[in-house]
Amino acid sequence: MLIPQPALRDIQNELREAFSIGLPLPGEIEPHLRGALVQALEHPGRMVRARLVMDVARAYGHPESRSLKLAIAMEYFHTASLLFDDLPCMDDAAERRGEPCVHRTHGEAAAMLAALGLVNRAYALLWRGMAESPAGRQSQAGAYVEECLGVGGLLNGQSEDLHYGQLAANRRSPQKVAAGKTVSLIRLSLVLPALLGGAAPGEIRLMERLAMFWGLSYQILDDLKDVCQGAAQTGKTPARDLPLSRPNLVLAIGARESLARLERMMRLGDRAQARLQGRLPSLTFLSDLRHRFGREIAGLKESHLWAA
Amino acid sequence: MLIPQPALRDIQNELREAFSIGLPLPGEIEPHLRGALVQALEHPGRMVRARLVMDVARAYGHPESRSLKLAIAMEYFHTASLLFDDLPCMDDAAERRGEPCVHRTHGEAAAMLAALGLVNRAYALLWRGMAESPAGRQSQAGAYVEECLGVGGLLNGQSEDLHYGQLAANRRSPQKVAAGKTVSLIRLSLVLPALLGGAAPGEIRLMERLAMFWGLSYQILDDLKDVCQGAAQTGKTPARDLPLSRPNLVLAIGARESLARLERMMRLGDRAQARLQGRLPSLTFLSDLRHRFGREIAGLKESHLWAA
Repeated sequence: MLIPQPALRDIQNELREAFSIGLPLPGEIEPHLRGALVQALEHPGRMVRARLVMDVARAYGHPESRSLKLAIAMEYFHTASLLFDDLPCMDDAAERRGEPCVHRTHGEAAAMLAALGLVNRAYALLWRGMAESPAGRQSQAGAYVEECLGVGGLLNGQSEDLHYGQLAANRRSPQKVAAGKTVSLIRLSLVLPALLGGAAPGEIRLMERLAMFWGLSYQILDDLKDVCQGAAQTGKTPARDLPLSRPNLVLAIGARESLARLERMMRLGDRAQARLQGRLPSLTFLSDLRHRFGREIAGLKESHLWAA
Repeated sequence: MLIPQPALRDIQNELREAFSIGLPLPGEIEPHLRGALVQALEHPGRMVRARLVMDVARAYGHPESRSLKLAIAMEYFHTASLLFDDLPCMDDAAERRGEPCVHRTHGEAAAMLAALGLVNRAYALLWRGMAESPAGRQSQAGAYVEECLGVGGLLNGQSEDLHYGQLAANRRSPQKVAAGKTVSLIRLSLVLPALLGGAAPGEIRLMERLAMFWGLSYQILDDLKDVCQGAAQTGKTPARDLPLSRPNLVLAIGARESLARLERMMRLGDRAQARLQGRLPSLTFLSDLRHRFGREIAGLKESHLWAA
C-alpha cells in the first residue's frame, strides 16, 4: 500500500466527503431506502473515477465547484452499477467495500431503489456541472454520456459479462466485454471534462486510448485478484468468476500470460499518457495514478500468488 | 371502451410509433438485453403521460420535435418503473401489458438492464428536449425532474409501497404513498413542458393540483381494478395488493367509500382543470382525458363488481 502524499490525501478526503454528502436525504424517506442509501454513501470506495475527472477538469480550467459535480456524478454511476452488479440475479455477491452488500443488509428492492436514487442524482449533478458550458459542447457531452452509459456501452458490457458463456464466438473475449463494462466509465471520466473544456479532437482520441489501455489493465488486475486473492485483500467476494462463468482473462489464458498482457497494455497506456501530458503538462495526477498502478502490479508479482 | 376520435387516434399512433423507435439498438447488443428491450419497446401502453406532455407543450408553443422528446422520455421513465416494479423482489408480477412480464421472458438481469437503458435514454431525450430553452428555465426544469423522480419523489413512493406494512403510522395511508409513487410522474409530465415554456407560477400551481387530484383518482381506479377485475380486463396480474400487503384504498376503506373518494377527487380536479383551461384554452386534451376518466369510472360502477 502506498502512503499517500499530503496533497493527494487532501483531495481524496475532499472527494470522499463530497461523495457522502452529495445526495441529501429528505426527512420523510422510507427507512429501508434510507438505510441502503446511507450505507452506499458512507462507503465511497477509492474514487478513481472522481480523481480522473478532477485532474482533467483542472487541466481544462474548469472551476472546482463544477468539476466536483461531474466527479461525484461519475462515482454515483459507478456505485449504482456495483449495487446492481452484486444482486442475486447478477453476481450474487456477499461483500463489497469491506462490508456485507447493501442488498444483504437492506433487501434487494431497497438496494435497487438506492441505486436508482444515485443514478437520478448523478444525472442531476451532470446537468448542473454542464450548465455553464457553451450549448454546443453541452449537447456533444450529453451524447457522449448517453453513449458510454447506455445500451451500447456500460449496460451492454454488463449484459455480456452476465451471459458470457452464451455469447457468439466472435464476442466471447474477456477484453471485449471489459471494453464495455469497465472502460466505459473510465473513458467518460477522462473525456467528459475535456469535451466541456473544448478539447481538440486529437486530445479526445488520446484520452480514449488511455482509457482503453488503463481500463483493460484495471480489469486484468481485477481478474488476477479474483483468482488469486481473498476477500480480506479485495474487500469484496473473491473467486466469483469461475463458478459464475464470468469472463476472466486469467481463467482464459492463465496468470502468466495475463500478466504479460497487462504489462503490454500498460506500455501502450504509457505512450498515450506521454503524448497527452506532452500536450497538457498539468495532467500530473496521471503520473501518480500510473505509479500506483505500477506498485499494485509489482505487489501482485511479488506475492507470487499469481503463479499458484 | 371509447372509440377514439380520428385526431386522437393519430396522435396516439404517432406516440406509440415514436416510443417503439425512440431507443435505437446497436447491432452488437447482447441477445438477452436486446430481447428485453424489444419486448418493452413493442408494448408502449396507453401513453397517458406522453399525451399530457404533448398537450401542455402545444399550449406553450413548443415545436413538436421538442415535445416528442419530452413525451417519450416520460414514457421511458414510466416503463422502466414498471419493469422494476414487476420484479420478484418487488411485486413478483406475471403479466404486464397483456404479456408475460419482461423478466419472466428474458430473465431478471436483462429486465433490469433494459430498464436502466430506458432510464439512460430518457435522460438523454430530456436533455435534448430542454436544450433550446433559456438557461434559467433549463436549470429550473432539471431540478424539478430530480425532485419528481428521485429519493424524495417516485423512488420514495415505490419504497413506501413495498414496505407499506412497516411504515410509521403517520405515513401509512394509501393516498400518501400514491402521492409519491403515482402522482410524481403525472406531475412532471404536466409541469415540465410548462416550466420550459415559461409558465407563470400560478399556472404551475394549478397543474400541480390537477396532477395531485388526477394522480390520486388514477390510483384509486387502479386499486378498484386490482380488487375487482381479472387479468383479462387489466392486462396485468390482478389481486396482488392484498397478498403483498400493498397500500390499497379499497382494502383500507372499502369499495363504496373509495368510489366516493374518487368522485370527490375528480370534482376537485375539475375545478383545477376549469381554472387551468380558463388561462390556457388550448389545453383541449385535458377535456378528452377527463371524459375518458369519467367513462372508466361509469363502466366500473355499471359492472357492479366494485360492490361485490
